[in-house]
Amino acid sequence: MINKLTAKIKKTEAPIVVGLDPMLSYIPEPVKQKAFAEFGETLEGAGEAIWQFNKAIVDATCDLIPAVKPQIAMYEQFGIPGLIAYKKTIDYCHEKDLVVIADVKRGDIGSTSGAYATAHLGNVAVGSKQYAAFDADFATVNPYLGTDGIKPFVDVCKEEKKGIFILVKTSNPSSGEFQDRLIDGKPLYEQVAEKVAAWGEDAMGDAYSYVGAVVGATYPEMGKALRKVMPKSYILVPGYGAQGGKGADLVHFFNKDGLGAIVNSSRGIIAAYKQEAYQSYGEANFADASRAAVLAMKEDIAKALKQL
Amino acid sequence: MINKLTAKIKKTEAPIVVGLDPMLSYIPEPVKQKAFAEFGETLEGAGEAIWQFNKAIVDATCDLIPAVKPQIAMYEQFGIPGLIAYKKTIDYCHEKDLVVIADVKRGDIGSTSGAYATAHLGNVAVGSKQYAAFDADFATVNPYLGTDGIKPFVDVCKEEKKGIFILVKTSNPSSGEFQDRLIDGKPLYEQVAEKVAAWGEDAMGDAYSYVGAVVGATYPEMGKALRKVMPKSYILVPGYGAQGGKGADLVHFFNKDGLGAIVNSSRGIIAAYKQEAYQSYGEANFADASRAAVLAMKEDIAKALKQL
Repeated sequence: MINKLTAKIKKTEAPIVVGLDPMLSYIPEPVKQKAFAEFGETLEGAGEAIWQFNKAIVDATCDLIPAVKPQIAMYEQFGIPGLIAYKKTIDYCHEKDLVVIADVKRGDIGSTSGAYATAHLGNVAVGSKQYAAFDADFATVNPYLGTDGIKPFVDVCKEEKKGIFILVKTSNPSSGEFQDRLIDGKPLYEQVAEKVAAWGEDAMGDAYSYVGAVVGATYPEMGKALRKVMPKSYILVPGYGAQGGKGADLVHFFNKDGLGAIVNSSRGIIAAYKQEAYQSYGEANFADASRAAVLAMKEDIAKALKQL
Repeated sequence: MINKLTAKIKKTEAPIVVGLDPMLSYIPEPVKQKAFAEFGETLEGAGEAIWQFNKAIVDATCDLIPAVKPQIAMYEQFGIPGLIAYKKTIDYCHEKDLVVIADVKRGDIGSTSGAYATAHLGNVAVGSKQYAAFDADFATVNPYLGTDGIKPFVDVCKEEKKGIFILVKTSNPSSGEFQDRLIDGKPLYEQVAEKVAAWGEDAMGDAYSYVGAVVGATYPEMGKALRKVMPKSYILVPGYGAQGGKGADLVHFFNKDGLGAIVNSSRGIIAAYKQEAYQSYGEANFADASRAAVLAMKEDIAKALKQL
């Protein structure tokens, strides 16, 4: 799947991923009202609104982008109907040949991490049958529990030719509280990055490993250092746009070949119609505004990559 | 809810929690076959088998215990039908007046952690209506992202009078890889524990905070030190039984009042019928074997607590 991701990034000339994190407040009133008219102001109604919103954005952007990243928390808060919308979104993105990065940030002790890996990337046995529960292509994983929390994910990745992105340095303001603390003269995030490189060594695609990392766009200097620590790992870069990261900050997350990083924008794309720059589209044309925002992001990053 | 948990621990004289982590391999063949006969070897069939298994164990043990801890990964791997079984289990445990600790180990940046807190502990707004998606009483949370990943959980806890247990020192063999590394002369787990104490300060129940910690039974010396670092935090202690922790190891996780810790056993209780000690019950009476295992665990811990 890392090979497919790399190929699709080359083909679309867009190392970007659209974060499908649909807060109800991002969804235009007409979409919500239509869903509520059919299902009421219920969890099912919320799930339907989310699904219709996602579908419109995917339809409007899928030819421009290699991948999407649904954030499962935004679906989980609507319970079972929310998770049905999550699964429908994954399946639809696959129909559109998009790579799906499940932003689930799971991580637990051995057998439990194994169950999470099965849930999101693998196949579960029921009697003599096998089923893929959520069937994403990549998942994000939390490293706090160490190797035996990560290994089951790597095993499933090797079996299914899928991938993970391990949290190294997150984009949020307080990420430094633990991640930046020095251990033997190196910050914790760098200690984690060294492990990411090691975990990924025997799980290689053609040029990049199945084991990638998450490093926030909001910390470009750290991105520069971490790029070198994990030369074979793709870096998933959240924090572009709404969180403050700019194209020019991102150049050092990439390798000299223009590959090795994929930049996520969520709010900046899916709620573009709410921004001043795209207001002229109007609420009814929210998906066209998202398309315009993807094109602008693509250009911003292409410009930055010329500095490589 | 921390007050209710404390009261129920006193009433049952059992600072224990039964981990409802139903691997299909733990479920007796007759239970599985009945579910498969009705729903086929499908995810729905697996969900039904899990639900019937859980129900029997809850029925057989609910008068002896204060709380249960379903591990959501074990349900998530069966997709939507698995999560329906998870929700049914929570609702049924509430009917039986058990405190439900959702072992979800979630954690993300601010607004996303907020969505997870809403999903598992809070209420989500849909138009003019409010719904509790999963409605557990406590949730486990990963601290890697720092204060702004934790704060939204604490806010929901204060609003809903619910609680969290933050991963401090996990029970798995490689937990030390990052958690034991020294930062300014103190291990990372202790740095996290100091934060747990601080986060919990303004979220107090009568005697204990809404903000607790997870510390593995497999590391009793660390439990002893951590007890003092977080005097007002309940410690959720996994790793008893199947993972190797013994009653005698646990005494230092408790405060002098015999409170402040709750010990989890999963496999050791729910798959007791597979152990030599309980084999005489036979597969058909698996729930009675679980009851016997709860009684033995209760006695083991009561004996240990006499050393306090």
